[in-house]
Amino acid sequence: MRHFEAELEELKKRLLEMSGLVESAIYRSILALVKKDPEQTNLVLQNEGRINQMQIEIDDIATGLLALQQPMAKDLRFITSAIKINNDLERMGDHACKLAERALSLLNEQPIRPLIDIPQMARLAESMVRKSLDAFVKRDAELARSVLVSDDAVDEMRDAIYDELVAYMEQEPSTIRQCLDLMFVARNLERIADHATNIAEDVVFLVEGVDVRHHAEVRNVKPA
Amino acid sequence: MRHFEAELEELKKRLLEMSGLVESAIYRSILALVKKDPEQTNLVLQNEGRINQMQIEIDDIATGLLALQQPMAKDLRFITSAIKINNDLERMGDHACKLAERALSLLNEQPIRPLIDIPQMARLAESMVRKSLDAFVKRDAELARSVLVSDDAVDEMRDAIYDELVAYMEQEPSTIRQCLDLMFVARNLERIADHATNIAEDVVFLVEGVDVRHHAEVRNVKPA
Repeated sequence: MRHFEAELEELKKRLLEMSGLVESAIYRSILALVKKDPEQTNLVLQNEGRINQMQIEIDDIATGLLALQQPMAKDLRFITSAIKINNDLERMGDHACKLAERALSLLNEQPIRPLIDIPQMARLAESMVRKSLDAFVKRDAELARSVLVSDDAVDEMRDAIYDELVAYMEQEPSTIRQCLDLMFVARNLERIADHATNIAEDVVFLVEGVDVRHHAEVRNVKPA
Repeated sequence: MRHFEAELEELKKRLLEMSGLVESAIYRSILALVKKDPEQTNLVLQNEGRINQMQIEIDDIATGLLALQQPMAKDLRFITSAIKINNDLERMGDHACKLAERALSLLNEQPIRPLIDIPQMARLAESMVRKSLDAFVKRDAELARSVLVSDDAVDEMRDAIYDELVAYMEQEPSTIRQCLDLMFVARNLERIADHATNIAEDVVFLVEGVDVRHHAEVRNVKPA
């Protein structure tokens, strides 16, 4: 039993470490975009290998825990959630790499606008990654619900960025390629936020037994 | 033990049924796009509820199987794969809904090009969904590898469609919004293909114990 508890702690530690790598990849990609610094993108692309390796190791720990002994119902749900969350983190890592690639592709372009909204959207997405993982390891449903609320804010930011970029493209067709790159940056940030939202939904279900994945009316009810 | 086997069969049956719903949602969305038929999109949006409900039920069956008794190592990996695949299918369902929404948004637009490539890309994505699930329930690594090969074809199609659409936008700025909608259709199809690829990678790992997720060189080796 002691071994089981120690392995469960190891699982949490690794997931937090992996989410730290993902957050840092988002941060560096946007820094590369804003500061036009290719060094930052290289660090992101180098780190992808570590994220991928961690995914495999975390899967092994989780499967090992399931095989080790018959876990209690509570632990069982925690471990199956960890397997899903691990998947979400790896996909976020992929999106962060795509952010870095877009930053590289925009390196030699004259910035068409101050990009104010994109760094803001990125900061929100980063905080959602951190909060969703903290909520998981602490089994904190309230913190998880705060991520669900942020997801709506991210969607609004994305819509505003899209509208602005489309207007730009229509006025200045010579900026179409650059605007498309920025649109895909916003899209990747939105996808990262979606994964954090999936994790937060898993946490609410884990803690409260309420499945908020497909019930908008339940999602928005905050506990008193 | 009999109960365990029966539940395992039920799990496979449900996953196949869910993948059938996803395939049909892709098919109907593209039909709606090509034939400008809003009825088809309504059917897709109605079916989303069933897909979401199935995700919850399949999760319950899988978790129940893990709790029921200590599964053998082989079954354990199969069940944890089923949990991931269930997640992938639900996300595919979400993408299919986004396809349907784009089809609706394009309903009143004059088609700018024959759209030949998009239905072709959709057919390939559909076949990847079906093959990846068949490969899973039959534990057929060879079939799974054929999905990995198709993924490269999908990426090439997407690149060709993008290039063509960007050229169009630059020539005819008045078509920018419509071209963006078509770009997001291609993007959603690509994401569906990505999920099928994730499933196929899980199957290869399940059957052969070779982790092909992050090793491009192994992915492309086909068994003799």
